[in-house]
Amino acid sequence: MLRGSAMSNVQAVLDRVDADLEAALERLFKLLRIQSISTDPAYKTPCREAADWLVADLAELGFDASRRDTPGHPMVVAHGGEGAGKHLLFYGHYDVQPVDPLHLWNRDPFDPALEETAKGKVIRGRGSADDKGQLMTFVEACRAWKAVHGTLPGKLSILFEGEEESGSPSLVPFMEANAEELKADLALICDTGMWDRETPAITTMLRGMMGEEIIIKAADRDLHSGFYGGAAQNPIKVLSKILATLHDETGRVTLDGFYDGVHDIPAELAAQWEGLGFDAAEFLGDVNLAVPAGEANYTALEQTWSRPTCEINGITGGYSGEGFKTVLPAEARAKISCRLVWDQDPHAIRAALRKRVEDMLPPDCTAEFISYGTDTATVMSTDDPAFETARQALSEEWPKEAVFIGCGGSIPIAGHFKEVLGMDSMLIGFGQADDALHSPNEKYDLASFHHGIRSWVRVLAALA
Amino acid sequence: MLRGSAMSNVQAVLDRVDADLEAALERLFKLLRIQSISTDPAYKTPCREAADWLVADLAELGFDASRRDTPGHPMVVAHGGEGAGKHLLFYGHYDVQPVDPLHLWNRDPFDPALEETAKGKVIRGRGSADDKGQLMTFVEACRAWKAVHGTLPGKLSILFEGEEESGSPSLVPFMEANAEELKADLALICDTGMWDRETPAITTMLRGMMGEEIIIKAADRDLHSGFYGGAAQNPIKVLSKILATLHDETGRVTLDGFYDGVHDIPAELAAQWEGLGFDAAEFLGDVNLAVPAGEANYTALEQTWSRPTCEINGITGGYSGEGFKTVLPAEARAKISCRLVWDQDPHAIRAALRKRVEDMLPPDCTAEFISYGTDTATVMSTDDPAFETARQALSEEWPKEAVFIGCGGSIPIAGHFKEVLGMDSMLIGFGQADDALHSPNEKYDLASFHHGIRSWVRVLAALA
Repeated sequence: MLRGSAMSNVQAVLDRVDADLEAALERLFKLLRIQSISTDPAYKTPCREAADWLVADLAELGFDASRRDTPGHPMVVAHGGEGAGKHLLFYGHYDVQPVDPLHLWNRDPFDPALEETAKGKVIRGRGSADDKGQLMTFVEACRAWKAVHGTLPGKLSILFEGEEESGSPSLVPFMEANAEELKADLALICDTGMWDRETPAITTMLRGMMGEEIIIKAADRDLHSGFYGGAAQNPIKVLSKILATLHDETGRVTLDGFYDGVHDIPAELAAQWEGLGFDAAEFLGDVNLAVPAGEANYTALEQTWSRPTCEINGITGGYSGEGFKTVLPAEARAKISCRLVWDQDPHAIRAALRKRVEDMLPPDCTAEFISYGTDTATVMSTDDPAFETARQALSEEWPKEAVFIGCGGSIPIAGHFKEVLGMDSMLIGFGQADDALHSPNEKYDLASFHHGIRSWVRVLAALA
Repeated sequence: MLRGSAMSNVQAVLDRVDADLEAALERLFKLLRIQSISTDPAYKTPCREAADWLVADLAELGFDASRRDTPGHPMVVAHGGEGAGKHLLFYGHYDVQPVDPLHLWNRDPFDPALEETAKGKVIRGRGSADDKGQLMTFVEACRAWKAVHGTLPGKLSILFEGEEESGSPSLVPFMEANAEELKADLALICDTGMWDRETPAITTMLRGMMGEEIIIKAADRDLHSGFYGGAAQNPIKVLSKILATLHDETGRVTLDGFYDGVHDIPAELAAQWEGLGFDAAEFLGDVNLAVPAGEANYTALEQTWSRPTCEINGITGGYSGEGFKTVLPAEARAKISCRLVWDQDPHAIRAALRKRVEDMLPPDCTAEFISYGTDTATVMSTDDPAFETARQALSEEWPKEAVFIGCGGSIPIAGHFKEVLGMDSMLIGFGQADDALHSPNEKYDLASFHHGIRSWVRVLAALA
């Protein structure tokens, strides 16, 4: 908690945020109107336009801001401010997902507006939550600070990416090529959500991922099951037998060494998660399920945040159209992804999966593999006092205490910051579960935007 | 073996067949030029034209022949002749498969011609082997007999179908509506092949089939594996675990009661099959396999002819396109077919399969089923002396002794004759393994056509 003059420094900025909210919304709407769909080459020009718009806006705040071209869409890099605290690097992305199917939207996705809903006012439009609305909470916090104090709140750098929604092909090469320039004391990543509408959150555990496709081949062509059935190997049968061994009857993954580097969450974190009041029945009930399906003796929250998985994401082989075809296929395929936690080594797990497949291959069958991503899990070192400082700052802004939470998905940028720049990350965001990211009618709560800006004012005052 | 006057009766007809071969080919070519593709409604008129052509040809031989319209393509029914022997019903079909891809043909598929090949002269054209060429062997045998003796060789009926290549929707209703008229002592079905180019065959065992689709459902929509992975049931995993239990490690099917009604082949038949000199290495080597994959302790011939199977013909679930998508699918599907032998009950086996699925369903999962065909196996009662008589007649025509063989596929017509008309069938045909049925460049050996006609002369003389 800040006291005395520091406190009043902050309060003046918070007042400025409140007074400037309408103008801040107007600025966000301008950015939302730019159709920066990164995956579609037809939108190359709008992507550059969004980058230029951000460079101009940051320059106005006193940042040394520049558009940095890449083989794909440009990066925006900015530096500014001075301070006794940590040098912070803020990351966000200005590109957005495609908008189809357009007919499911209640308005033009690139004509944003405030809408009144049962849960309060929302900003409707593509990118409102993912990620333009979120990244502008940070920019507006800087703007308010500058307006009140004439300076930025501390030593800040900014990295805005334009390819997050299309696989970030330029990100790591750019970070490697500009490592010295980009390295700071701590990265702030604003692409996550709150625990609920009243409870802000810092995401401290991200699962990693290992993706692999298995292709089992037998005969050199599809066979007629009347002529060959019984005598010829059936790759679907072989694949099913392999996949069926991946989990034992308790839901535990059986690959050799799979749990190397995995441990239970510390008692303190367990107690905190317990206190979240997570309702597994409601979480599963939302999608018409009832029983946590993962490892026995772990809660649904652990199963999705702190326990690893081995999931089959796709399977195909033989005839799957209408009706029936008595074919013995030449091959069958499965796409498998393991969500990883703690210190699991994705490469060792890929090797163990391949070994399982090879070990179970019957005569006449061969296996081929296609490797997809390998991201290690990211576990933030919350021992760093900055985490508790930020948690307290967030708690002052919202009705309930901020919490440390996990995230079952992967946010590769945090791993890249660690691996390429040796820099820890703090993930703070103000999204809600019903924001419809990547979907029609994406929205961002006006409260998320408004109190998100105010939250950054508090966090920056405390950290930078 | 026929002796004395019977022998000379036959020889005169065989001589007539030889002398008339060129004209017989011309007649076959006329029939082959009619584009009777039954599956494509655009060819309705040619199908009727083929039926009319056959009616006229049979009438010319003294048959009481008629085109019998159905909701689909017409049947051709004919009756004629008298005799002390069995009343025989001959079955064939005048419809053909589509011809695409047309560019893979070496000539217009409906402009038949004789071609010289490394294995002798062939009749090239759609339907040459399947089944116009085969059915005309029978018609030409009758024609030669009529030319020599002035009568048909015995009491004969004919049923030519025009929907065999499109699922025979009118066949059973037509048989049921005309059961009295169609019932004979024995059916002759000419839609099968020889053992090899020198060895004629009577197919005495046909496997039946039970087809079933299994649909496993869990969540009410596709889920993100980051958000739900670990806590939500994965239908692909559930399906794989079920499919993996269908066979034990010896290749035996584990469904309850699956082998009820199954027995090993009699020693005599086993000895005969042994004598065929079947080369499993060559059979499997043709499709780049080496090791018979079915039940241990059974030969590849038994595995495909006299042993039942449970095969997965198709599987699908989740994402199977290019790249990767971390989805937990709402459902997964498999198409399963069991090839049945002896007295296996397809309905009991369907029930056992469904029970296995239901028994293995974890919480939150449901199963749905789609039923496809159920054909019982057909095993001819070769105790009937007619089989040995026909076998000897065939043996007289070809370089090697005729053999009784099995067929791993299903020919439903034999089952229909048994079930609807209470009539046994004898399957005799002159196709070769390389006839390219259903494929581009379909052909029928000139030797199959010529000696096929002569074979029917001998078989009819012996049976009718």
